[in-house]
Amino acid sequence: MEEKNEVLVRYLGDLFSRLRIPPPLRKAMEYMVFSSGKRMRPVLVFATYESLKGDEGTDRLLPFASAIEMIHTYSLIHDDLPAIDNDDMRRGRPTCHKVFGEAIAILAGDALLTEAFRVITDKKLVKGLKPGVLNRIVFEIAKASGAEGMVGGQTFDIVLQGQRPSRRRLRLVHSLKTASLIRASVRTGAILAGARGFTMERLSKYATYVGLAFQMKDDLLDLVGREEIVGKRLRKDHGKQSLQYCFSLEEARRRLEGLVAEAERAIAPLELKTDLLFHIARFVAEREK
Amino acid sequence: MEEKNEVLVRYLGDLFSRLRIPPPLRKAMEYMVFSSGKRMRPVLVFATYESLKGDEGTDRLLPFASAIEMIHTYSLIHDDLPAIDNDDMRRGRPTCHKVFGEAIAILAGDALLTEAFRVITDKKLVKGLKPGVLNRIVFEIAKASGAEGMVGGQTFDIVLQGQRPSRRRLRLVHSLKTASLIRASVRTGAILAGARGFTMERLSKYATYVGLAFQMKDDLLDLVGREEIVGKRLRKDHGKQSLQYCFSLEEARRRLEGLVAEAERAIAPLELKTDLLFHIARFVAEREK
Repeated sequence: MEEKNEVLVRYLGDLFSRLRIPPPLRKAMEYMVFSSGKRMRPVLVFATYESLKGDEGTDRLLPFASAIEMIHTYSLIHDDLPAIDNDDMRRGRPTCHKVFGEAIAILAGDALLTEAFRVITDKKLVKGLKPGVLNRIVFEIAKASGAEGMVGGQTFDIVLQGQRPSRRRLRLVHSLKTASLIRASVRTGAILAGARGFTMERLSKYATYVGLAFQMKDDLLDLVGREEIVGKRLRKDHGKQSLQYCFSLEEARRRLEGLVAEAERAIAPLELKTDLLFHIARFVAEREK
Repeated sequence: MEEKNEVLVRYLGDLFSRLRIPPPLRKAMEYMVFSSGKRMRPVLVFATYESLKGDEGTDRLLPFASAIEMIHTYSLIHDDLPAIDNDDMRRGRPTCHKVFGEAIAILAGDALLTEAFRVITDKKLVKGLKPGVLNRIVFEIAKASGAEGMVGGQTFDIVLQGQRPSRRRLRLVHSLKTASLIRASVRTGAILAGARGFTMERLSKYATYVGLAFQMKDDLLDLVGREEIVGKRLRKDHGKQSLQYCFSLEEARRRLEGLVAEAERAIAPLELKTDLLFHIARFVAEREK
């Protein structure tokens, strides 16, 4: 997947270089997209497709993997803003608004979100794919990132601040804020591989568990991780629907293991061409950043 | 068009009411969408379609007109933010962040932008339209609102502050910030009416001039309008690429007339079923708010 990642970064660089846009906007967009993120979501697009169809012709996944990474990046830029999470560090570097100012950070987020939808409907970039497939993917990604998905989750995260934390509320936030776009990544890979019915249903289930596990691990790292490895300020979730008020560390780790096991169980009945998706589920739980 | 507007408002209300989302997010989205805007862009979607195809079956334009209005609204919410234009009043009411706080205003903008793309690819809402047509419209709208369109224009507006104003720079900002989404509105109506070639080219030209005229008039109102009619704080464009540094009032008014005349000339050779588009071009220049 390392190699895929490099191809993706080159592709994104090429996309941005072709945009005729004001230099500060370009720099702010590139700054965060090219920082050392895990690129979990594009990796899931590739891994899902390859699990079903093998390693051939994966270049045509690039616009979709890029679009999802752009949307993930926009969400980080906006979440870091002073009015929202007010974070100064991300991936070991100052956050976007610290470098470019708040106005440009807001606009860079807006641009990344909008360009994501342009990229996946640009005829020059998505040659040979059926328009019906493209529509399904636009819908899938928009629904996952919008009011009933990621943005809704971020809103709950804010409005539930100060309210008594509960496991139900924590799961709601995790599910919308994080799992929904991870689910859309897997489903996008699956749609492009022509998956339907049982396969699609199992992969969606897998993705939901992986997404929940991912955020559970994020919260755990916030509690016990090392700032110099994780690359951002930690232990700042006070007042939010946070893990620590709902589970002991021991319980949380057990719960995380449980989610990974559920993810694995979801795809166990499928005949997959690689065990990438199993590796990813493991990685999500074991990562140190 | 009054009647169309009421249908649109009901349709948008229905769209929002079906979203299962956190109440503050819903309220912030509705607050600005349902304020008394001119709804120029949806009106242009309808008027363009009707000019080519007549008044039948215009209900199927609703998702597209709604999406464009949602995108326009998100841009107002984000532009009004303290970090950008720092405006307190809009359409005679406190701006979104004044009522709901900055965090919710940022997220409501993000949600409106994202939901716009969901709405126009939601099978339940866009029945009977070819996927290829939907793709073209997603692309058209995304390109017009993104880094090479509206967001790019807003960025130029910020980064050119303090630089010597020039007519070329002013036109660049007007063209990207305002004309591009107005152009996408006309082209969306035209695409849905099956327009091509010469007709599409002429309508696009019309829309560009109407868009430039619209922003020219906005700048004029900023200089000579009455706050209680326009509904927002005026005479605040100092330091921006503003009309007043490039033209005398007399010149600006003549220039505005010239743009309207160009718009009319662009569509004069077309055989249109109504003169709505001519009326709209006139309205843009003559409006008092």
